[in-house]
Amino acid sequence: VVKEQGHDNMSKQDGFAMKPVGVIHSPFAHQSGTPIQPVFAEGAQGTIEVYPEYKDGLLDLVGFERIWLLYLLHCAPPSRLRVIPYRDKVERGIFATRAPCRPNAIGLSCVRLLGVAENVLTVADLDILDGSPLLDIKPYVRDFDSFPAAKAGWLDARRVNLTHADERFDTRGPE
Amino acid sequence: VVKEQGHDNMSKQDGFAMKPVGVIHSPFAHQSGTPIQPVFAEGAQGTIEVYPEYKDGLLDLVGFERIWLLYLLHCAPPSRLRVIPYRDKVERGIFATRAPCRPNAIGLSCVRLLGVAENVLTVADLDILDGSPLLDIKPYVRDFDSFPAAKAGWLDARRVNLTHADERFDTRGPE
Repeated sequence: VVKEQGHDNMSKQDGFAMKPVGVIHSPFAHQSGTPIQPVFAEGAQGTIEVYPEYKDGLLDLVGFERIWLLYLLHCAPPSRLRVIPYRDKVERGIFATRAPCRPNAIGLSCVRLLGVAENVLTVADLDILDGSPLLDIKPYVRDFDSFPAAKAGWLDARRVNLTHADERFDTRGPE
Repeated sequence: VVKEQGHDNMSKQDGFAMKPVGVIHSPFAHQSGTPIQPVFAEGAQGTIEVYPEYKDGLLDLVGFERIWLLYLLHCAPPSRLRVIPYRDKVERGIFATRAPCRPNAIGLSCVRLLGVAENVLTVADLDILDGSPLLDIKPYVRDFDSFPAAKAGWLDARRVNLTHADERFDTRGPE
């Protein structure tokens, strides 16, 4: 059962329909070799094409240094509840990782906003696969989003020096 | 048209089906009076009930001081591309605000994780309406998510001292 948004009498079994509001164009065609987070993207640039009917929603976005992109992890393997994440060597619960094979395959990336021209954003620090359907853009607000001292569980304890994806979540399999 | 996740040949018209993986229990029954962001929630506590079939995904979440909650803004009014956000007095593009009436009504909140017991998380700094369907939990990782110097456009320029929601996005209307 898929319902429209805005109903508040949903039961556990119901699904929700999301629609793409744009598409992400990046230099990364496959998961392998893609930076695993924007901070490892070394400035990689791309563009966010917002579909023309949503262009008015981009008003006032200029001036935000960073934005959140919410997008569909459209090449993610089927959902698993335990995974060996990129920066570790043992299994972790999926909700304690940023791995793509999640129950709802929604990606979240904080990218640098370089410019807005009509319905196209130019961004840097991109860690997203080319062609990913865009679900939402939110402004990055340091008062809401920045917690520079927050402890990071297993990630604080063990740091593997991996910054770019290997083949483990690549639906094409190992090369 | 609603497709399952994992297809990478989606066209612009396609929708995506998301399913709730849990439900958020909070002290806030209505939008009016709800903190507009976790930082204004003054520690408000609540619980996140993850449905038992996803419990294994919570492994290793203990130790993260903060977590991202992605959830459905299930009481949001219909989508509008320009809104007068809580902390301003003029219209802004929806993608330059955190207002709930978005094309895809996905909420994003960074809350403090107090504890995990079986399939229930206790959290603080909650700014979410009671009963909101949970879509995803991601660990807050300061290296990926914290940019304490990021400029915040119109929000830096004009700061209205509003920290809790008034009636403007309350589907019940003004009281």
